[in-house]
Amino acid sequence: MTNRQIVLTRLPQGDDKLTVEHFTLAQGERPSPREGEVLLKARYVSLDAANRAWMQGASYRAGLNPGDVMAGQALAEVLESRVAHLTAGDLVLADTGWQDYAVLAAQDLRKLPKLVPETYLLSVYGIAGLTAYFGLLECGHPQPGETVVVSAAAGSVGTLAGQIAKIRGARVVGIAGGEEKGRWLLDELGFDAVADHKAADFKQQLRNALPHGIDVYFDNVGGSILEACLSRMNTFGRIICCGAVSQYDGAPSLQGTRGVPVQVIIKRLTMRGFLVWDFAEQNEKALADLRTWIEDGRLKVPEDIVEGLQNLPRALVGLLQGENRGKRMVRV
Amino acid sequence: MTNRQIVLTRLPQGDDKLTVEHFTLAQGERPSPREGEVLLKARYVSLDAANRAWMQGASYRAGLNPGDVMAGQALAEVLESRVAHLTAGDLVLADTGWQDYAVLAAQDLRKLPKLVPETYLLSVYGIAGLTAYFGLLECGHPQPGETVVVSAAAGSVGTLAGQIAKIRGARVVGIAGGEEKGRWLLDELGFDAVADHKAADFKQQLRNALPHGIDVYFDNVGGSILEACLSRMNTFGRIICCGAVSQYDGAPSLQGTRGVPVQVIIKRLTMRGFLVWDFAEQNEKALADLRTWIEDGRLKVPEDIVEGLQNLPRALVGLLQGENRGKRMVRV
Repeated sequence: MTNRQIVLTRLPQGDDKLTVEHFTLAQGERPSPREGEVLLKARYVSLDAANRAWMQGASYRAGLNPGDVMAGQALAEVLESRVAHLTAGDLVLADTGWQDYAVLAAQDLRKLPKLVPETYLLSVYGIAGLTAYFGLLECGHPQPGETVVVSAAAGSVGTLAGQIAKIRGARVVGIAGGEEKGRWLLDELGFDAVADHKAADFKQQLRNALPHGIDVYFDNVGGSILEACLSRMNTFGRIICCGAVSQYDGAPSLQGTRGVPVQVIIKRLTMRGFLVWDFAEQNEKALADLRTWIEDGRLKVPEDIVEGLQNLPRALVGLLQGENRGKRMVRV
Repeated sequence: MTNRQIVLTRLPQGDDKLTVEHFTLAQGERPSPREGEVLLKARYVSLDAANRAWMQGASYRAGLNPGDVMAGQALAEVLESRVAHLTAGDLVLADTGWQDYAVLAAQDLRKLPKLVPETYLLSVYGIAGLTAYFGLLECGHPQPGETVVVSAAAGSVGTLAGQIAKIRGARVVGIAGGEEKGRWLLDELGFDAVADHKAADFKQQLRNALPHGIDVYFDNVGGSILEACLSRMNTFGRIICCGAVSQYDGAPSLQGTRGVPVQVIIKRLTMRGFLVWDFAEQNEKALADLRTWIEDGRLKVPEDIVEGLQNLPRALVGLLQGENRGKRMVRV
């Protein structure tokens, strides 16, 4: 049996934005697991802005190289197991990469519960949901009545972070590109106000949305939006450094973040970076909270499912252009 | 009786560095206190990089305006009191400004203990000492064996922060301008290593001084030194945002801090700004610790005392050029 694979043929250089031309579809052999390994079949491949950051070199993980099967996480089914704790038919989250089949060492894989819809395992019960939960609550500590601003608010993490902030009694302002997305955040997800970063009067919109300043800023983008928020932070405000999607694709910003450190000092701000795995010990509590909120109807889980492995490159390029609403994934 | 006053005649504009020409010596009347006020005579006026920052506009305090008596804190003696809790002869720390005499509302003034040397009330037991103590310990949380880097290491806060980090068992690296200052930090204050930010090979010196990276960076300067340290931070490192002296005098930096937020995210850093007053409830404990360390001979208190009120302008200009070692003050 063949194994379709999306290979990263070359890395975007310098000012290049990522395009579908950086990838090619290849055919490999379906591999076989050895002792301690499992053979997985990808069902849904996750798309994340971080995928693009991995092309910039080593970070919290190794950088990507030309010729690599594109890296990525998937919700996958165990087809064949050479370990005791997994059996055929089990579902796992695994770094399969962009391909039909992958053989992986099984020691860090754990069996997921069966639930409906199973895509929730990749969205709200996966990295996106836990990132929103831990970032907001463990790094941001929003208090009832405080103002929380979320950038990339229509994205996989932003949609959830904003709603969790609402559940915790905060006033929530979303920053997203385009009027239509803003409308959707207000009408569908219950955000209190929005600002369109593509609009000429973005800063004015942001100011209007913030009669009491910002107490917590959940930053998914960095760059000029981070700067705009820095200047509106309240004393003792918290900035959650979750992502910097403005810095991942295209010309690298030669200029750094203005307002750091002066605004941080005079307003006594805390900026904190985190990765979701830092809070793994609290996963069970987080998952239980998320489940409760979903069952109560307080937390909606927007998903954006693209069909077909061959569409992974365009799905990622589109995500970097902000076309998704909620968690984007590709059904293989 | 006359009251000598140093007046800020004009504010440095744009790229201007502060010079003695921005000040003039004037003669005022010695004022008289009303009910609730005290008449103070300044003994030692504190000089701080923050004095220059106040000329850039409102921050945690009102900005300065041309024609103002230059603002500043002093160790002062009560000459005449119209309140019950202070009497003639008491010493206080007060925002007298740069003048012989000042009348101030007394409600926030408190009588200081008499001790020898009394200048310690303005240095190690004043804002500099408490800033070093709270910044390092409450924001930086250094652990034994960790590496702590201090910039403006030969300054009033840096000299103390570095020594406190040593007392807490950290390896301490100082960043200061010039070989001689570095030698002094090593020989007199027990720093483990230094890097000269004026040297052409500063980054190499810093790298050599950091075989195990940086766990805690006590930042007094911002700018390119902050950037250099960001790139050498360890995972879960803490950056104490105490000052940004590189941004206070001369051409404002058009470029912000590169590495924020990307380094903050991938290394899970915390950057925290603070002001010394945020920890006022813990002042007694801090002062007791500082006293113990001084009495044990573990904490040296370098002071740099300039004679004569008329020399305040040049003392501040010199401080901004880095000519002081330890706490600079002017004996009136």
